Amino acid sequence: MYDIQYYVDRPCLLIDEEITRRNIETMFDKAKKNRVIFRPHFKTHQSETIGEWFWDVGVREITVSSLQMANYFADAGWTDITISTPLNLLEINQILDLARDIDLNVVVENVETAVELTRKVRVPLGVFLEIDTGNNRTGIQPTMADEIVSACNILKNNRYIYFQGFIAHSGHTYKAKNLQEIYQIYNTDRNVLMSLKNDLQYLFNNELLISIGDTPGCVTVDNFSWADEIRPGNFVFFDLIQWKNGICHHKDISCVVACPIISIQKQRKEILIYGGAAHFSKDYFIINDQICYGLLAFTSKDDRFLLEPDTNSMLIQLWQEHGIVKTTEEFISFSKVGDLLFIYPVHICLTLDAIRYCRTNDGYWVHVMKK
Amino acid sequence: MYDIQYYVDRPCLLIDEEITRRNIETMFDKAKKNRVIFRPHFKTHQSETIGEWFWDVGVREITVSSLQMANYFADAGWTDITISTPLNLLEINQILDLARDIDLNVVVENVETAVELTRKVRVPLGVFLEIDTGNNRTGIQPTMADEIVSACNILKNNRYIYFQGFIAHSGHTYKAKNLQEIYQIYNTDRNVLMSLKNDLQYLFNNELLISIGDTPGCVTVDNFSWADEIRPGNFVFFDLIQWKNGICHHKDISCVVACPIISIQKQRKEILIYGGAAHFSKDYFIINDQICYGLLAFTSKDDRFLLEPDTNSMLIQLWQEHGIVKTTEEFISFSKVGDLLFIYPVHICLTLDAIRYCRTNDGYWVHVMKK
Repeated sequence: MYDIQYYVDRPCLLIDEEITRRNIETMFDKAKKNRVIFRPHFKTHQSETIGEWFWDVGVREITVSSLQMANYFADAGWTDITISTPLNLLEINQILDLARDIDLNVVVENVETAVELTRKVRVPLGVFLEIDTGNNRTGIQPTMADEIVSACNILKNNRYIYFQGFIAHSGHTYKAKNLQEIYQIYNTDRNVLMSLKNDLQYLFNNELLISIGDTPGCVTVDNFSWADEIRPGNFVFFDLIQWKNGICHHKDISCVVACPIISIQKQRKEILIYGGAAHFSKDYFIINDQICYGLLAFTSKDDRFLLEPDTNSMLIQLWQEHGIVKTTEEFISFSKVGDLLFIYPVHICLTLDAIRYCRTNDGYWVHVMKK
Repeated sequence: MYDIQYYVDRPCLLIDEEITRRNIETMFDKAKKNRVIFRPHFKTHQSETIGEWFWDVGVREITVSSLQMANYFADAGWTDITISTPLNLLEINQILDLARDIDLNVVVENVETAVELTRKVRVPLGVFLEIDTGNNRTGIQPTMADEIVSACNILKNNRYIYFQGFIAHSGHTYKAKNLQEIYQIYNTDRNVLMSLKNDLQYLFNNELLISIGDTPGCVTVDNFSWADEIRPGNFVFFDLIQWKNGICHHKDISCVVACPIISIQKQRKEILIYGGAAHFSKDYFIINDQICYGLLAFTSKDDRFLLEPDTNSMLIQLWQEHGIVKTTEEFISFSKVGDLLFIYPVHICLTLDAIRYCRTNDGYWVHVMKK
């Protein structure tokens, strides 16, 4: 870790390969144990390099959140991709172009889109119907039975469309106050999705699938063998939100942002870093009644960045390119201008989307899709 | 504006060229009237294309916020660049490489960095000393006279360094409650910076410069001829923060984010758009006691997107790729899946940094630095 100073000269996301590969294996094994397809969400890393670590354990099916990401991973050799953000009709032609080359699934969540899609599709395409199981973001609500049945009928009557089944994203597990609430959310998901599957299976010749998957649920719920597929993403690195919510141990977090110290304000106990909203994003959480954009990770030669996040040293302010770390007199006393600070990000998906500049902490480049 | 539907198919920042060029001319003329160097901050647009619009009125000196941006604009032909983020010692070698090719200025704001810089520099380099005139972010506080004099003496005794003078960024004008507070901040800046210049001019053979420049101050203060250079950035597009603070009229805002409608929830009066934190950033402001990530811009054939931001239709929630616009029954009634919505961003610098995908609203590509 200490020799990182020789090759990191600006804000850089450092990925611990060992922990990341362990996180991947743990989730892969859990999916296997539950006999569900493991289709991890690649929006968290957007990286060919990290994609290969998934490939190494045997993953062949992936999820992405945009057509651009689907193209990027198709170019990298992935041939079975679900774009989980509900279908954007304006990109339909490019999506169908990609479906000529690979096995592509899209997600539909309203009748209008189903109608338009069936008018345009002239190439085999997998389609999931999204159900809103309580997250109130995307998907048809399960009470709107007529709309669900209409959408199914529209999709089933098209010879190019292969209707895969029902997809849900229980993002409200991120707001659960304890594990019981997460279990409760998964119980609801099971009831809603299994009864839909049972009720509507008669319409189709193929076995319908149930696809679920958010990190808090997939990590903490033991048994989700009632589903057929999981699509978690964040677990690959974890972050402070998962740590604060008790979903992971800090030793499971495999990413920190390395930031050069620009100056030190001893009196104010503040360190100005090169590292701002352009690197961390402005996602925050509240800790000790304070808005926090990141927590310092103390390092030691042996433990690399595995030491506990320090709630006395936090990123309290962010501008486009720099930020202020409020810390202790002690930490100030052994810091100097030109050192690197290592900071755990609050929400790694947005941090990676902002910084797009990564290495492993052994110094290897991690290739990230360009933006 | 309506034919934009034919070439915008995913979240895209649309720049009105006419308004942007007008904003540039207005600020150029104001700098000229005040007889100060106009060195606009290019971190707001990060774009070769928009850089050319500045070139067209006669701008030849620019400001950027990172070495990467300096390299990008140097490659585009700009030969006089200030990196205004205080010097990052870890990048010193690459910075000095660039200083071999162009006239480059860096900013120093502590003695440690001044010492290290003088040890390494072997190529002509302009240096500004940053003074903290009240923003509490970067710069030496004017009361720390010893440190200021030390830094000046260290820098003046190096034969490669050309000491340009004092630089300040009064970012606290963004938080001013009214114009009087902005005027007051500029009065303080003038007093602090002019007395430093007078007191320390004797050390140097060249005439020292005073460089200031934030958008709220440069737009609203009539007379800043006591300074020698201004470096505003945001004024090129303006945004909702400037509009809400009364710095600009909504007709001066030259950017909107075009976002496809994914679905419509009539009962909840919500529109789900393709457009999230990956496009807007998570910067927000509070309006009607509500967290707001953007306001809808109504459009008409004649006025393009010049109509007033609609405080009844706002972006209230953001995920990585999508967001929810809360709006009125009336607006819902004439919206449909696959339409584009036009949304004014809260803070254009971070929105552009996140989206990096722009066109003029006449359909031309706006080239943005890759990340």
